[in-house]
Amino acid sequence: MKKIINPDKKNWSSLIKRPSLSYENIEPLAKKIFRDISNYGDSAINKYSKKFDNIELDSFKVKRDEILKAINNVPLDLKLAIQNAKKNIKIFHEAQITKPIKVETQPGVLCWQKKIPIERVGLYIPGGSAPLFSSILMLSIPAKVAKCGQVIMCSPPDANGNLADVILYTANLCGVDEIYKIGGIQAIAAMTFGTKSIPKVDKIFGPGNQYVTVAKQLAAQHKVAIDLPAGPSELMVVADKSANPDFIASDLLSQAEHGPDSQVYLITNDIKIADMTINKLKLQLNLLERKDIANKALNNSKVIYFEDYSDLIDFTNLYGPEHLIVCLENINEFIDKIINAGSVFIGNFTPESAGDYASGTNHTLPTNGYSRQYSGVNLDSYLKAVTFQKITPKGLSKLGPMVEKMASAEGLEAHRNAISIRLKSL
Amino acid sequence: MKKIINPDKKNWSSLIKRPSLSYENIEPLAKKIFRDISNYGDSAINKYSKKFDNIELDSFKVKRDEILKAINNVPLDLKLAIQNAKKNIKIFHEAQITKPIKVETQPGVLCWQKKIPIERVGLYIPGGSAPLFSSILMLSIPAKVAKCGQVIMCSPPDANGNLADVILYTANLCGVDEIYKIGGIQAIAAMTFGTKSIPKVDKIFGPGNQYVTVAKQLAAQHKVAIDLPAGPSELMVVADKSANPDFIASDLLSQAEHGPDSQVYLITNDIKIADMTINKLKLQLNLLERKDIANKALNNSKVIYFEDYSDLIDFTNLYGPEHLIVCLENINEFIDKIINAGSVFIGNFTPESAGDYASGTNHTLPTNGYSRQYSGVNLDSYLKAVTFQKITPKGLSKLGPMVEKMASAEGLEAHRNAISIRLKSL
Repeated sequence: MKKIINPDKKNWSSLIKRPSLSYENIEPLAKKIFRDISNYGDSAINKYSKKFDNIELDSFKVKRDEILKAINNVPLDLKLAIQNAKKNIKIFHEAQITKPIKVETQPGVLCWQKKIPIERVGLYIPGGSAPLFSSILMLSIPAKVAKCGQVIMCSPPDANGNLADVILYTANLCGVDEIYKIGGIQAIAAMTFGTKSIPKVDKIFGPGNQYVTVAKQLAAQHKVAIDLPAGPSELMVVADKSANPDFIASDLLSQAEHGPDSQVYLITNDIKIADMTINKLKLQLNLLERKDIANKALNNSKVIYFEDYSDLIDFTNLYGPEHLIVCLENINEFIDKIINAGSVFIGNFTPESAGDYASGTNHTLPTNGYSRQYSGVNLDSYLKAVTFQKITPKGLSKLGPMVEKMASAEGLEAHRNAISIRLKSL
Repeated sequence: MKKIINPDKKNWSSLIKRPSLSYENIEPLAKKIFRDISNYGDSAINKYSKKFDNIELDSFKVKRDEILKAINNVPLDLKLAIQNAKKNIKIFHEAQITKPIKVETQPGVLCWQKKIPIERVGLYIPGGSAPLFSSILMLSIPAKVAKCGQVIMCSPPDANGNLADVILYTANLCGVDEIYKIGGIQAIAAMTFGTKSIPKVDKIFGPGNQYVTVAKQLAAQHKVAIDLPAGPSELMVVADKSANPDFIASDLLSQAEHGPDSQVYLITNDIKIADMTINKLKLQLNLLERKDIANKALNNSKVIYFEDYSDLIDFTNLYGPEHLIVCLENINEFIDKIINAGSVFIGNFTPESAGDYASGTNHTLPTNGYSRQYSGVNLDSYLKAVTFQKITPKGLSKLGPMVEKMASAEGLEAHRNAISIRLKSL
């Protein structure tokens, strides 16, 4: 992990660069799979599941008895932990429910806004080495709080055509309506167009590798919304002398183990904290199972010392980290100045892991500097704000003449006439 | 305008089709302009402004004295109308301000969500035949209510290098920070990358022709967010015998005059209303200045009679109109069942024009069926929801062991360790 001392502001833009990713070579493949699934439906899904995952299934849909078996197989202590996480996530997302807004903007002109759930939601849960059941919690619980009509899920099965027990347990616990054993680009394409077996959805949520990322981008061009532009995971720790280097090192590694393209930063105004953290990192790294992955991620990562406290704030906002851990003495002063971040973890006993799994906040967050303009997944990600208005004849008699003037000034006489014809009738 | 009687449900999917638009032939040009402006900045803007708009300017930025002159030139009655619209739009968008949400999800685990304004916002206001100052109201007022740091605006100048007085007046009234005389693809590219003259922004808002639409799609691939996927404007009127055919005809025409690719629908369970509206349409059409445009739009449009009341609801939700006017006797019953619509206008004295200009709701709305998954522009379009959490040592001692179990079950030992190392220290 590279240490940098007091970088000149004119070099900051190079310091906030993420590991570069190019998806262009995946696009032609993704477009072909989208075309095929749009044209040939289930048979094309079968073709690509066989080709990429070496899987042939009679049916994509997980059956009730598979779920019952899975519920039986998950150890009780893990079940209790998942149930507790579910409770916290539900509480936090329920707190985000807003009441309809109703305002009489001028006499007789009543305007209101009501949030309406998106009808059909599709979740993608990656397969691979670890069963990421925590993403099911994060994506299905707010969908249910929002009262989306239909919540389906796709996830690639293992070599025997099965999904992990804990995946099925969690999906069932959270009320996912249907679970399908399909992975990768073909899963996203299936939810985009719909097939005989797989329903079309209105919005697709979920993490994934580069293939899934490209597929979601393509889906967004076919009248499906997506949760967020995806990118590799990131963590920035801001620390002063009040921080604990052992804790910081553990946090940096927890993010680094995600993948070789992850990025972790420590920024500090205390050079001792910088050096001690680097030492602790080396010690802790050697004990990790996913050491090789974490080590590669550390090559994309930096420890930066800033003499000026204000640089800590400015650099944080310029970087706009997905996850931000803040361990400072004057913490509130710093927190109030944060403009760009996905989720913020405050103090020495608030590791990112807590929010990744169970504290209640969502772990689906903007990466790659997108915290400048995007929220992480939250209740509103599953809702649409629809406006309504009702004007009384008396209200229109006051408002109407002003609308007539504005419409005429824009050269839109039919707009004006829709008012005039009503005013004349009064 | 084609009349259809009781269409079979299996044909509905063809009835909700919008006029098809293909942007593929514009994409190569847009990509070239993006590349050039990314590489050559202002000189590339100049090159394309000359090429497409036949404009050569010493400076893109509107000067203070141009604004002062414009303020002088706008007639007082129009100024008062614009000020009244501003007041209503401000009231309605201020009503959308939410308080931070703070919840202790379990003892010692405090989670909160705070909305933070997007720092830099860019508005695009089309030029052309009519000066669309109403879009400035709709896009800049919520930006100011949200307290965005910087609100800039681009709009193409006329042949003399000027923007319309009413455009400058409105932008100044609403507190737009800088106004630039640039149009089309080059304006969107300039705000995407930033140049010496034009600041880079985080999110681009605003309507535009097909060139601007493609440019906004490209911008979204360059780390800039956009308000909405754009498409031609639409209106659906749902009416029963309580409606007024003259009023309906005026509303359909107000939407049809927008452009030849606009689409307007009347759906009704009263065949007399259908026929009378078609007659009134013909009469009113002949009186319009923009008759040719409206007539072309009417070719994309339909009057549909449904015998069953429930079909009115189902067809509305399947179509998902941008604008929906509802003139029914049992209006509340219908309103409660609306799932997919951008903005809803209720009763015989609530023409769409009112919301287009001055009632208070926003007129930037999802078209082309996107009301299934997108909100129209609202206060939240200018804000990001950022989450925070703070866990006490005692809180972590309860939550931590459950996080450890979940992290281990996902095979992420460094995630587990970030908890364990803290629990051990207690």
